[in-house]
Order: sequence, then structure tokens, then C-alpha cells
Amino acid sequence: MSLNTFGRLLRVTTWGESHGPNIGAVVDGCPPGIALGEADIQPWLDKRKPGQSRHTTQRRESDTVRILSGVFEGRTTGTPISLIIDNEDQRSKDYDEVARAYRPGHADYVYDAKYGLRDWRGGGRSSARETAMRVAAGAIARKVIGNIGIRAHLVELGGDRTTRFVAPHLETSALACADPEAEERWVALLDKARRAGSSLGAVVEVIASGVPAGWGAPVYAKIDADIAAAMMGINAAKGVEIGDGFAAARLTGEENADAMRPGPGDDGSGGGPDFDSNHAGGTAGGITTGQDLIARVAFKPTSSIRTPVDTITADGRATTIATTGRHDPCVGIRAVPVVEAMMALVLADQMLLHRAQCG
Amino acid sequence: MSLNTFGRLLRVTTWGESHGPNIGAVVDGCPPGIALGEADIQPWLDKRKPGQSRHTTQRRESDTVRILSGVFEGRTTGTPISLIIDNEDQRSKDYDEVARAYRPGHADYVYDAKYGLRDWRGGGRSSARETAMRVAAGAIARKVIGNIGIRAHLVELGGDRTTRFVAPHLETSALACADPEAEERWVALLDKARRAGSSLGAVVEVIASGVPAGWGAPVYAKIDADIAAAMMGINAAKGVEIGDGFAAARLTGEENADAMRPGPGDDGSGGGPDFDSNHAGGTAGGITTGQDLIARVAFKPTSSIRTPVDTITADGRATTIATTGRHDPCVGIRAVPVVEAMMALVLADQMLLHRAQCG
Amino acid sequence: MSLNTFGRLLRVTTWGESHGPNIGAVVDGCPPGIALGEADIQPWLDKRKPGQSRHTTQRRESDTVRILSGVFEGRTTGTPISLIIDNEDQRSKDYDEVARAYRPGHADYVYDAKYGLRDWRGGGRSSARETAMRVAAGAIARKVIGNIGIRAHLVELGGDRTTRFVAPHLETSALACADPEAEERWVALLDKARRAGSSLGAVVEVIASGVPAGWGAPVYAKIDADIAAAMMGINAAKGVEIGDGFAAARLTGEENADAMRPGPGDDGSGGGPDFDSNHAGGTAGGITTGQDLIARVAFKPTSSIRTPVDTITADGRATTIATTGRHDPCVGIRAVPVVEAMMALVLADQMLLHRAQCG
Amino acid sequence: MSLNTFGRLLRVTTWGESHGPNIGAVVDGCPPGIALGEADIQPWLDKRKPGQSRHTTQRRESDTVRILSGVFEGRTTGTPISLIIDNEDQRSKDYDEVARAYRPGHADYVYDAKYGLRDWRGGGRSSARETAMRVAAGAIARKVIGNIGIRAHLVELGGDRTTRFVAPHLETSALACADPEAEERWVALLDKARRAGSSLGAVVEVIASGVPAGWGAPVYAKIDADIAAAMMGINAAKGVEIGDGFAAARLTGEENADAMRPGPGDDGSGGGPDFDSNHAGGTAGGITTGQDLIARVAFKPTSSIRTPVDTITADGRATTIATTGRHDPCVGIRAVPVVEAMMALVLADQMLLHRAQCG
Repeated sequence: MSLNTFGRLLRVTTWGESHGPNIGAVVDGCPPGIALGEADIQPWLDKRKPGQSRHTTQRRESDTVRILSGVFEGRTTGTPISLIIDNEDQRSKDYDEVARAYRPGHADYVYDAKYGLRDWRGGGRSSARETAMRVAAGAIARKVIGNIGIRAHLVELGGDRTTRFVAPHLETSALACADPEAEERWVALLDKARRAGSSLGAVVEVIASGVPAGWGAPVYAKIDADIAAAMMGINAAKGVEIGDGFAAARLTGEENADAMRPGPGDDGSGGGPDFDSNHAGGTAGGITTGQDLIARVAFKPTSSIRTPVDTITADGRATTIATTGRHDPCVGIRAVPVVEAMMALVLADQMLLHRAQCG
Repeated sequence: MSLNTFGRLLRVTTWGESHGPNIGAVVDGCPPGIALGEADIQPWLDKRKPGQSRHTTQRRESDTVRILSGVFEGRTTGTPISLIIDNEDQRSKDYDEVARAYRPGHADYVYDAKYGLRDWRGGGRSSARETAMRVAAGAIARKVIGNIGIRAHLVELGGDRTTRFVAPHLETSALACADPEAEERWVALLDKARRAGSSLGAVVEVIASGVPAGWGAPVYAKIDADIAAAMMGINAAKGVEIGDGFAAARLTGEENADAMRPGPGDDGSGGGPDFDSNHAGGTAGGITTGQDLIARVAFKPTSSIRTPVDTITADGRATTIATTGRHDPCVGIRAVPVVEAMMALVLADQMLLHRAQCG
Repeated sequence: MSLNTFGRLLRVTTWGESHGPNIGAVVDGCPPGIALGEADIQPWLDKRKPGQSRHTTQRRESDTVRILSGVFEGRTTGTPISLIIDNEDQRSKDYDEVARAYRPGHADYVYDAKYGLRDWRGGGRSSARETAMRVAAGAIARKVIGNIGIRAHLVELGGDRTTRFVAPHLETSALACADPEAEERWVALLDKARRAGSSLGAVVEVIASGVPAGWGAPVYAKIDADIAAAMMGINAAKGVEIGDGFAAARLTGEENADAMRPGPGDDGSGGGPDFDSNHAGGTAGGITTGQDLIARVAFKPTSSIRTPVDTITADGRATTIATTGRHDPCVGIRAVPVVEAMMALVLADQMLLHRAQCG
Repeated sequence: MSLNTFGRLLRVTTWGESHGPNIGAVVDGCPPGIALGEADIQPWLDKRKPGQSRHTTQRRESDTVRILSGVFEGRTTGTPISLIIDNEDQRSKDYDEVARAYRPGHADYVYDAKYGLRDWRGGGRSSARETAMRVAAGAIARKVIGNIGIRAHLVELGGDRTTRFVAPHLETSALACADPEAEERWVALLDKARRAGSSLGAVVEVIASGVPAGWGAPVYAKIDADIAAAMMGINAAKGVEIGDGFAAARLTGEENADAMRPGPGDDGSGGGPDFDSNHAGGTAGGITTGQDLIARVAFKPTSSIRTPVDTITADGRATTIATTGRHDPCVGIRAVPVVEAMMALVLADQMLLHRAQCG
């Protein structure tokens, strides 16, 4: 992937900083003739929008997306789709401290090290605000891939894992949690962390259902590699696993084998064979098997905490810094729609790649 | 990344199948004037070579690399470097079963699903034999990045973790294990698995030391994303994490903060600030911090096991298959030099990207 | 180059249609720390702006550019630079005819053939309005390449060639013509064509001075190939030549040889050897020689003419069409700043590629 | 395009130098299931092979191609196709002079300027020997695009143009000339040039018939731009034009209009409308119209002449050089199959791009 472009054939280029006038994306390579309007995109943005509960940042952004090009009479034309969202609630004064000193765990120091200067207002380009455009582009990708369902949810927050999956609960959960009991515990954890000026990590699981067998490639364009890059490129992501992931390393070959039987059957494998299990998470040899495609992403606790931490100033002197701006106590929560969007972008790109090569 | 090409500026394109006449790679974009000969590449290949102990496949390959282009009077010319290795010890007859039926967990089924045909001899393109060319290309990447040390080792095998790091032990370990006691236990695990016709998973850790601060990019070309794609694209990889990785999701923001102090000090941060810790694994905001760059990769137990598993034939009938070819009981062992090579390729590519943009 | 992206390292992605709300570009990969404001871009846009004389279209656009991202406190940050220009003077009703029938020589038919639909308002994406964003991006590229002078001018209009080059005349010429006598003749040709509802072709020459020796590459990234793609991708371009171009095919090897002498001398070769001539146009083997880089681009007469031409309707019936919208009688005139911009973009991209590989 | 890779989806990476052990190409992204063997490639190489008449270089190369990967049981597998040709008749001693001094018009000087060193044996990477691999890859591209005919021929040699097209004559012409009278004159011109130790330029025309309407893209991936890059990237090319090209710049809008009538008719437009003419050369707005796709490429007279020319040594002193190696008196002749191959590669890549986006 290029610096600010994701994808090979469905290519998304995002731009914009946290405290600039707006943020945007250009989606190039979209197939023509797809029904598309702002109403197809806005609901996904609303899921990611800040300020929807006390558990996310209190920055107020309507995140209203406008389509500036590439759509004519309600259908995509095959030319670039330009998307824009205005920034509305910048408070750059919250960031005077950030101009002066580097926040540990943030991009402040490395931007100076790399570029020799940085836009410190709200974290500039390193702000998670950029992920709004991924969600917007992901909404288009969903239209491209059609009847593939993509659903992400939190399976772990602050080290506390879910133990069951109640689909209806997930629909209404403010924490993208499918386990009612876990959610109760997590609310308590989050309230405690917020009061303490601390933050918590989380693990997001994403499942794509209805992916046909055959998408991906044998070596460097493995769908596994694309998913890994897509997810690890989200702010605060520190780990990605597919199927059983790290747990697979503790199984034997027999335990890990996904035995096959003549299909099509009732396991959602899209007309291919039936599989007895899905340790692999829907991919073999870099190519989809037709089973559910499953990945998990670990998010660190945000570095924006009110507790003072030792650091240095931009001119190299010792100091401490505490983050006083408005921040999410657990960035993993709002990462859920971003993880879904990145999965949609990977799948749409691989769909087009597959269609190009294999017709 | 393209189908069979890795990298943007230092671009490696590999070709070849397990049982074809040879395998090869073209390394394009290499800076000129670098001293390079086969002797710079062969030692890394020898580390990966099969048949060096009873713990790896008994296929006998000398894996002798030849440079066919791009080097003149012992120095790179800036034009493509073509590398080739002859295949010597194919036994395609071992694979008659594979022609007939799909091995669960292997690429057999998905290749047919994608391409409508497959080279079943030794797994064709999906064989880990392709990784020899990554190791060869990685040897060139090491020359490009100069004094950066890259060292990988196993931290877990069959679910059993190392508890200490004894550098001299690692130098001679046949299992790339830095913990003498763990190695003893692992030998027993491997012997048991081999006798049982089973296989084991493993986790490989890789550390790059001496990486300057400032390599990487803020969004889709994050060095984290590149590492994730590079590692997840290795055969049998199911998970990647950077720094504390999945464990970071269980820390609080204070615990995870890598506090900074005026440097340069003695923490290897290359003239930048000192860091009190390295939970982040050497990267922040997608850009290197100057600390050690640390990643871990989970490898599943190979699906090539002697235990019969239910599967289907290429024409969709139920059958069972047992793998009788020569295989590694733990592919994680021979993945160690591959992980190192992929890290070298990521770093060399990002070094050139950084030099392009920032001079 | 990708569909709507130009460049490898300095990457320009443009978006927008003739009659949409705005047009824009995202410039990614720009080196950090470059002083940049709208005032650096606007003058180049003003050169291309329509409606400046009776010889160009009477569409009135202020073409005021705004920078939405990537610049902080007057300097580039290394992150994507988003540029936007509002469309102000659309008259879509002029295009009712175009909705109904295909204009020969235009993209109307092929867009329907390719995409199954088209935005017919003002030509949609195929309008030369897109070239405004190339000029804006080219202004940034000029800052990247520093002290390289790029100057284009018309050397032929309506089949009538210039015979001399008077630099001061070019500065004030409304026709980008450096030959005062030719300009007088061209004014008469243009007035006649406009009255006749006809249009004229032209040839633009571009010269880049101060390009160092060594930019480019031996094979597919030859600077010649990049220039050819850049120029042939401009609307209405039908031919590109470098140095003596097609005339070189009529010379002998001796006549065409650019003999070299020890330098540096006074031929502008930047410290390298002196050359007795520059038939090659500043490139050999795909790489710059340090001499002036010279290319010429042929532009067809625009297909937008008032004379009725036989054509078909979108549903395949015979009809005739005459273009009644506001159009340039000779698109070659306003192509001059576009040609300059594309040369700047090629050079900036190759400069970064060279710096990446050769330091 | 990358340094040594051509194409986006059908990607050809070539490697090798004139006097290395071999030259090769890796063709990635080829659709699976295409019947392919060496016998499909060799005939095209034989057309380009040197030493077939007294009008081309006397270097003797059998140019026997071998397929090393990507084909199984006579069909492409969708994985990289590695092609190799051994170099057989190097005479590096012919090049001692070249090691010492720079040949004007050759890449000698610029390679040193760029890379700081060069493989001077036979011109190294800058030798036209690389084009053999383009021809080999082009043979695969022809299989990908199926029933599209691609035919190139010389329309001008030494400034002398053909005036008629006799298809059967072209089939047997040693000069790729379709005009029997012109060929007689050209033989005399070539003999005279060879005796004089001189060289001649040429113009090659290429026609692709049967290309469907709709391939290409509106802006930077215009098929025109791809053709321009492909052709200008051939050794010794100095100009490219499409359709009427530079002559179109001398027409009026009415003269240049390609009027359309309801089709399908007998003009080869593949089921679309009939066109009264084809000034455009088969493309409008960057996209194919379904008419014949026509381009012309100007080749300079080779700089390898026996007449001494002033130059400098590698250490900057004045000298003269005469080329004594074996060379083509008119490189345009052997460029004919290369031009065809590049057209095939452009079309195959655009076909896959079109299929990806538009299904």
C-alpha cells in the first residue's frame, strides 16, 4: 500500500488532520452502476461517531458525509468518488501541552523525528479522526461486495473476555458487546478507568460471512496478509490473528485440521464442501475457503491519559505530560466499525483482483 | 503488494514451484554499489535448508543460489538482481494422493476453487519452498540496511514457552531456541510428535536493533502494517503482534506508557531520547521510535500429518487422506530465517521510502 | 499509473466532474518542510484559467484553489495535501444534446460502452476541467524540484509553425507564442476558425532546464516513458516526441550523434560534460543527461465544433450533432500550463525515485 | 510502471544484461487455464532474432526460451511464469573501448552519472537484448487477449516512406515492409549505410484489430498513455503518435471528426457503431472505440556507428570513439516484433483492468 492509499484496484486515499477544516477520501476504481448516496454511508459513520455515550470521547462531531464526485443520478459512474466531512468541534487550545512536549505512546516524537515538523493540533494526521474516512469508504466497499455480511464486536475489554455470543444483545450494545454479563462488568471497568484518568485495551473480533471460496493469492497478496496489514494499520492496533491465531500454535496438527466432507451443506460454505471446523478462520494458502472469514485485532489502551508521565520537550528537556483533551477511555470500542470497514475494503479489493485474473 | 511481488521500492518478485526445475527471485530497486556475491546470500539459505536435523523435513536440497544479473565486478549495479536455486530432490510420486484428494488445511482445495486447476506436485506454488527465495532476497535487504541487526528465535513450541534468553545458546541451537531448558523439553515434544505422525505449532519472535527513528508512515504504510503483512504472508502464519501485542490489550494506559527521558542514553535508541520501557515494540503512530523493533508470529502446526483426516476428492467424493511425504513436524523452526528475511525486506523498503520523501 | 492517480512516490489523485460542485486533487508523498500556500499555486491556475481572451472558452471560472490539509504554519508536513476548486459556471442545459447523442471524437460513446452510464453534464469526468488539478499539483511539484525551470509554448497552430523564439514576447503572449509574426498569423487563423464554428490543432513544446544528469531508469521507468505517458494522458493529445523525435528517424547516426567534450562548460549541462548538440532532447538510455529536457506534444482540434456531424443517439439511431456549449477553438493554447505541470510531476516523481535508490 | 516491471495486473518483470549468463522475465497475474508452451513463444522470438539477414546485427543467438514455472500439464496455473533465455554469443572484448569512454547517444555516461558504476559489457542492461524478453512476454499477452490481431510494420526508413500496403508482401519481407517498391529502395539505403559505417532511423506502425470498445480509463490510465509509455520505453524510440497523431494537429475539427452511424457494419468496430473514418486511431477519451487501434513509433538511427565521434573518457578527458561491435544498421527493423509485444502487453493489462472494474 502507498503512504495514504489503501488497496490495489479499489483504492482509497484519505487526507486531512484532526483540526483542519475537513477530512476526506477519494475512492477510485469502484465498479460503475452501483446505487449510492450519502444515505448509504451515513449510518456506518453514525456507528463510529464520538460522543454517543459516556464511554467515548465527548468531542461533538456530526460527521455528516458529502459525496462530491463519481455519482450521477444515484449511481456510481466508475470515476473517483470524493467524500468529505467537515470538522466541527476542534479545540486546539487543549493541545498547547502537546505542542510543547511529546506524549509517550503517541506519534508526536516520531513525526518530528521523521518530518522535522508536525501539526500538533489534535494529533494532526495521527488522530483517529482519519478512521472516519475508512468507515465511509468501507460503506462503499460493502456495496461492491454485495451480500457478504461483516460484523465486528468486542471479545475482550480490560483483560475481561466474553464467554457467550447473544446476537440480539449486540445490536443494541453501546460497547459492541454480545455478552450481556460481560457488558455489565465492562461498564464498571470503564467507569473506574475514566474516573482514574486511565484507559483500557480491548480485542475486536470480525466475521465476514458469505465470502466465496477463491479470493486471495498464494504469496504476497494472501488475503491473510491483506487483513493483517489492514487491521494493524488502524490506530492503536498491536496484534492481528486469523482463525485460532496464536492459540493455533498450541494445537497439534490433528486438533487444528479442518476436515472436509462433500457439500454443499449447512455450514455456510457457499456451495463448496462442508468443513467440520474452522480453526483456519476461512482461509488456506492465502485464499478464502468459503467458510466464515474470522480475524481478531488487539488494541492497546490509549496513551492519552490524565496521569502524568515522564517525557521530553520538543527541544529535548525532561518534563512530564498529562493529556487533558477529550479522549476515549477505550479506543477499542469505536474501532469496531473501523475494523468492519477495513475488512470490507480488503474483500472488495480482492474481489476485483480475483475477477481480473480469473474472470 | 502485488500477487507475487513484495515491497514498493525494494521489490522482490518470486517464482517457482516445489517440483519445478528451479525457484527464483528478481530483486529490483536495489541501490547500486553494494558489495554482493553468492557468498553473502548462501549462509542465510543454509540456516533455512531442510534436512539439517531430525527435527526438519528429510528432503535433501543443497539450496545453492546463483546470481544471474545485476552484479558487476562484485557490486550491485542498480539493475534487477536475478537469483536462482535448482530443485534437486523432488519426489512427485509421494504426491499421488494429493492429486486425487484435498489435504485439509492445505491450499489444495482453494487453488482448484480459484484457478480451476493446480500443480499438485509437492504443493506447487503453495509449498514453503518459495520461502527460500525470501531468505535469499532478505540477505540482499540486509546489505541495503547496513548495521541493523535482525535476530529471530522461537519463544514457544507446542504451547511450551521459553523463560529466559541465553544469547550464546541461541547461536548453536538446532531449534532456534535461546533457553537451554526449554530446548530440552522441545526436543522431547518434537520426537513424540514425529513418532505420532503429528505436528506442533510455534511462536517466533524477531528483534531488529539499530533501526533509526523515523521510518514508516502515518496511515496505510505504517511500518506496523508492513510487518503484519510480511509476517502473515509466510506459510502457516496465523497471528502477528508487535511489542506487547495481545498482552497490551490487558494493560492500563499507565502500565503501557513508554516514558521518555532526555537521551542519548544506553537503551539503544540511536541518539534519540531514552525510553523507560518498550511496550510499543519500537513503533508509534506507524513510525519507528529508534528502540528495538519487536514482533512475534504464530505458526500453526503443519497440516501435513500422517494421521488420516476426513476430506473430499477433487471430484467431490468423501475420502480420507494421510500425508506421507517428507515434512517438518514443526514448520515454525525453519520459519525463523524466513521471519528474519521478511523483517529485513520491510526495513529496506521503508528505508528507501523514507530517503525518497525525507532526504 | 493507476486509474486516477499519477506518479509513484509523488502521487497525485484527482477527482471531480465538469459540472459537479467542485474538483480536487490529493497530493501524497510530498517531502516535508516545503514552504507552501495557495499563493504558490494560484498563479499557475490563472495561466490556465478560461475566459482570458476571445481565443479560449467563455466559461467563467475563478479557479480559486484552497488547501485543505497537509500544510501547517505555511510548510508541508509530509502528509497528503488536499486541494479543492469550486465549479462556479456550469450550464448543464447546454448539454441536453449531449445527453441524447454521442459527440464524435468525444468520450460520450466510449463511457457508455465501458461503464454502461455516463455523467453527460459538461462531459463529466472527460472534461478538460480535470486538468486544472494537474496544474495545481504541478505547482507543488515545482516546489519539490526546486531550481529547475519548466517552460512550454506553442510551436505550431493550425499547421503554421513558429520560426523564431523571442523569450520576452512569450511572457506576454495570449497564445503562448514566442514568435511575434506567427502570433499575428495565428490570431487570424483562430478568428476565422471561431467564426466558422471550427477548431484547430496545435503542437506544444516544453523545455525543462537545470535537470541534473541521472534521473530516470533503464527500462520501463525510463524518463522518456514517463513523459510520454504524462503528455499522452492530457485531453486531446495525439502525439509525443522527445528531442528531435520523429525527425530523428530521418537522420543518419552521425547527424544524430550528440558529441561530448570535457565540461563543465556553458551548455547548461550542470557540471557534466559539454555536448555539441541535443538531438536526444536531454535523455539517453531512459536517463537524463543534464542537458535541457525537451518534448513536444500534438493536440488535435477539439471535437466540439458548431458544424453538424453525423452520429448516433444513445439508443443507436442515426442523427447529427453540433456542439453549442462554450469551447476553446484551439485546446492547445490552454494545454500549455498543463504540459508544464505534467513535466513538473514527472520530474518530481523521478527525483524522489532517484533519491530513494541512489541516495 | 516500476523500474523493471511493466503492467498493473499482467505484470512483466525483466532482468539480465547483454553479456550475463542469461536474460529472463517473470510474468505475473496471468489468468489460469491458458494453453501455453515454449512453442507458443518461440516463433515470436524468432521474428526478432538477430542475424537473420545482412540488415541486422551478426550476433548469433538462438534465443531459445524455456518456461521454468507457472505452467502445469500445458496450461497456465495463475502463478508466476518464469521465462529464461541463455546468452550464447557474447564478445565482451569488442567492448574494451566502451569501458574506457562514453559512446555518445548511448547510456554509458548516464549510467555512471546515476549509479556510479556500469556493466559496460555489451551495454549491460541498456542493450536491446532486454527486448527479447518483452517479445516472449508479449507472446503470453497475445494468448490472454485471444482473438485480437496485432501487426506492426515499417512505414518509413531513412526518411523514405511507404506509399502502399500489400499484406502478402509483408508476410515475407525481411524488412517488415508492406510496400515492395519501398523495400527495394530501403535495401539500397541499408547497404549504403552499412558500407559507410552509418545507421538509419525508421518509423514503425502497429495496428491492433478486434479490440472491443471500452478498454482504458478516463485520466492517467488512458489507453493512449499506456501505449505511449510502452512504446517510448523501447530502446531508441523518440516519438509516439496515435491515429493521425502529429498530422491531426494540422486538421480542422471537421476534418478530424470520426462521424458515427448505426452499426454493426463492416468497419471492424465489433458490433458497435460504424465510423466513417478513424483519425482518432481507435481511442476517444482514453478508451477504445472498437475501431482498429493504431500507433506509430519513431526510432532514431542507432548511435553505434563506425564513424569516430568526439566524446570523453570515464575520467573526463577528451577522446573519440567508434563502435566496432556487431550492430544493427537500422534498429527499427528488429523493433517491429517488440512494438507488437508492447501493444499486446498494454492490451492484456487493460483487458484485465476492465474486467476487474466492469465485470
